[in-house]
Amino acid sequence: MTADQGHDPRTGEPVGEPVPHTSPSELDRACRAAAAAVPALAAMPPADRAELLRAVAGALAEHAGELVPLADAETGLGHPRLTGELTRTRVQLEMFAGVLDEGSYLEAVIDLPDPAAQPAPRPDLRRMLLPIGPVAVYAASNFPFAFSIAGGDTASALAAGCPVIVKAHPGHPGLAARCGQVVTGALAAAGAPAGTFAVVHGLDAGRALVQHPAIAAAGFTGSLAGGRALFDLAAARPDPIPFYGELGSLNPVVITAGALADRADPIVAGFVGSYLLGSGQFCTKPGVVLLPAGHGLADRLATAVRQTDLGPLLNARIQTGYAQTAAALSAVPGVRSLLGPTAPPAGPGAQAAPVLLAVDAPTLLDRADELLVECFGPASLLVEYATTEALLATLSALPGSLTATIHADPATETDLVTTLVDRLTARAGRVIFDGWPTGVAVTWAMHHGGPWPATTNAGHTSVGVTAIRRFQRPVVYQNAPDPLLPPALQDGNPWRIPRRVNGTLTT
Amino acid sequence: MTADQGHDPRTGEPVGEPVPHTSPSELDRACRAAAAAVPALAAMPPADRAELLRAVAGALAEHAGELVPLADAETGLGHPRLTGELTRTRVQLEMFAGVLDEGSYLEAVIDLPDPAAQPAPRPDLRRMLLPIGPVAVYAASNFPFAFSIAGGDTASALAAGCPVIVKAHPGHPGLAARCGQVVTGALAAAGAPAGTFAVVHGLDAGRALVQHPAIAAAGFTGSLAGGRALFDLAAARPDPIPFYGELGSLNPVVITAGALADRADPIVAGFVGSYLLGSGQFCTKPGVVLLPAGHGLADRLATAVRQTDLGPLLNARIQTGYAQTAAALSAVPGVRSLLGPTAPPAGPGAQAAPVLLAVDAPTLLDRADELLVECFGPASLLVEYATTEALLATLSALPGSLTATIHADPATETDLVTTLVDRLTARAGRVIFDGWPTGVAVTWAMHHGGPWPATTNAGHTSVGVTAIRRFQRPVVYQNAPDPLLPPALQDGNPWRIPRRVNGTLTT
Repeated sequence: MTADQGHDPRTGEPVGEPVPHTSPSELDRACRAAAAAVPALAAMPPADRAELLRAVAGALAEHAGELVPLADAETGLGHPRLTGELTRTRVQLEMFAGVLDEGSYLEAVIDLPDPAAQPAPRPDLRRMLLPIGPVAVYAASNFPFAFSIAGGDTASALAAGCPVIVKAHPGHPGLAARCGQVVTGALAAAGAPAGTFAVVHGLDAGRALVQHPAIAAAGFTGSLAGGRALFDLAAARPDPIPFYGELGSLNPVVITAGALADRADPIVAGFVGSYLLGSGQFCTKPGVVLLPAGHGLADRLATAVRQTDLGPLLNARIQTGYAQTAAALSAVPGVRSLLGPTAPPAGPGAQAAPVLLAVDAPTLLDRADELLVECFGPASLLVEYATTEALLATLSALPGSLTATIHADPATETDLVTTLVDRLTARAGRVIFDGWPTGVAVTWAMHHGGPWPATTNAGHTSVGVTAIRRFQRPVVYQNAPDPLLPPALQDGNPWRIPRRVNGTLTT
Repeated sequence: MTADQGHDPRTGEPVGEPVPHTSPSELDRACRAAAAAVPALAAMPPADRAELLRAVAGALAEHAGELVPLADAETGLGHPRLTGELTRTRVQLEMFAGVLDEGSYLEAVIDLPDPAAQPAPRPDLRRMLLPIGPVAVYAASNFPFAFSIAGGDTASALAAGCPVIVKAHPGHPGLAARCGQVVTGALAAAGAPAGTFAVVHGLDAGRALVQHPAIAAAGFTGSLAGGRALFDLAAARPDPIPFYGELGSLNPVVITAGALADRADPIVAGFVGSYLLGSGQFCTKPGVVLLPAGHGLADRLATAVRQTDLGPLLNARIQTGYAQTAAALSAVPGVRSLLGPTAPPAGPGAQAAPVLLAVDAPTLLDRADELLVECFGPASLLVEYATTEALLATLSALPGSLTATIHADPATETDLVTTLVDRLTARAGRVIFDGWPTGVAVTWAMHHGGPWPATTNAGHTSVGVTAIRRFQRPVVYQNAPDPLLPPALQDGNPWRIPRRVNGTLTT
């Protein structure tokens, strides 16, 4: 294969022309150009870099009438969802522009000289974060705007001052190429250095990218297998680089007897809506739901699922993977089927039927390796626990997740809820109370990460303001003459940013 | 080998009894105990954890009369240096106690609900950093207090709320074992949960430690080969963990014509004092010095070196490695010897003679792979540049370093100095003006890190307040009832810590 061809998942028909894969020499040229752009991009004042981000956001909005239909043709996600996602993508870029204006992201810290310091006199020390260097971004299939060419990884890396090379996802190659043109044009018009941004296509280019000497860090959203392969390449380099991957997540939901007694109907509706959202192709899909044994919800759940309209899956590859994983899960002895798996609905394209399975907690623990795997698509697994001990034992077996959700009655189940919070914060990056994990706000406080395999590094996030930190490195200047310091660290604080001076935060 | 035996490097004689290696079952027990300690240690209010750190600092001070002589017997570093280092170690622990009291390290961020947020209404989101889990610490040979059992990695991990298991360095096994007892006793007396701290011995235990399922992160200070081996094990786990290693550094020093014209004598004295400090066994030793061709300092440098008293190396293994590396460097065609390498001074123990080599910049570039390697011990390499172009080309060839130093005349060499700052901040974590890299202040602003191979992750530091961040992971609580939130995130802010609320920092 030397090109990526987009297909309409509703029909299976090709969309647009094939997009050629990037050759090794083209990739090398893009990486060298990115490396050459580093000093000029780093030297831009944050306020100017903020304008670059706003220019990209503006260009996306300006081209929405072209991009949304193109995205819809290649992903089948529908105009309303894609229009909202494009808005989110623009909001992400604008959020980071605001972060640049605010200045805390530089983490400016100044320790003035102290001749009396113990165990030795202290020199003048001034620390801040600099861009780490060119960043490789691996686009995801399921968010063709928000986690793709101009998505969160790109926005945070550009905000940090890093040139970006995006490996396009083959599921939406035409959109990726067009978005790449829009972003490149907007950046150039706004004064970004040549080499600041590029898009590459093809698996080989993706592998070569993370191994290229010019690349200093990588962000990835995708499958466990794909992310692990690239993580391993990053770690095996002569000079390993940080690889920030979001790989896969079960997003457990715990429902207690108290919650069921209080509000079974909204729980059924909320769960079904969340797990089938986007045909179950969200990284935060609730894939495992722990319910009290004897919950009596099987019929209501099955009815609610049947009443939900399901769009096609993103592409034939995901369709195949979904069918195989759902079949494997349902074939594990002790697993009961509430719905499916069945053959996909008749017709062309990447259709899929929803699946809802159930198993009791002891069986889950016996077959954890087979059952605690992500099934990307409209499937979820109910785990029925007879006792609190069985519930807690099940939680201990869960792998790391992006999210964990609690539906309980804090008033009557105080001790249990406290225990659940402790257990779930240990296994997930976001703990949700009385809600559903799909939908990730893009804010200062958001954390979209979690222990392996949710991510390759539990210390970082790919959504929210602190995503920028993945692409920064600290430098401290010792006894530097004031004019040689970056403005962020000069005595006069010309950028008027928050700084910590002699240990005290000043805003 | 089933035990580590300390030796006095001045005599080669054994010191104390052999310290047995930790068996696989003992290691497993320690790791399980650490995992079991996680919830209780994490649940301690920061103020209580600060008391743990102060208790350890106090115990070290209390036992100084025993520990300093023991350290001296096993390392030969001398009482004055070791007394100062013990003070630094105590100061590090106390600094982190202060950090816990201050509270910024929790990075508490609160976004209140916003029903009007775009592209979707925003829930209540409250983020903070939690301890990552049990931490493996690999002690260094050259700082038997400050980078060993109770050193910076241990202090920052305990401060973060993580149980710690230290792999002792075989160079000072008796001191390591005794320090382990002192630390364990102090922690227990101060109320730390059982399992909070342990020391293990032996290469096999070290390898098993970083692979143990209970271990969530690792800190390391040591050689490139040893660090890389452990990094690879951490990355190859079924669930890779972050490995924060400080591996080796050339610490380039650039001296310009302007600086030489202004102050050649203090530069000679400062450089020789820095590169021979601790017999050249500092990770920040200036190992490469770029000087204008025709500097005319050869005799003055050689004289200054000869006038410096040199203690023994830390042990016979370092002695052998030093001799081999110095011989290999001096054998590269085009390398001139200003001093040595010669046979070590007569007598027992791990004595070594100083080495000072010189090479012109074009030759260095031709043989960069052979010449740009760390020679641990009292050796340094002068690189003589005939032009600014040759100077800058040499800088481009340098690997990442912990530090880089500039001696110039900013008044008359403004453009050159500006270029040097840009080039050196790209290659090092600390840039020093008109000083010397040995000596690392332990403060809020300090950064002790740098691009590979200085460290395995340029985004982090092993010295200074932000070292704590290596051992934390973010969690965000969504729509949590106030009583279920950690105190750091509750409406009332009972710990009175700095927080960011709706994007605005409040102190």
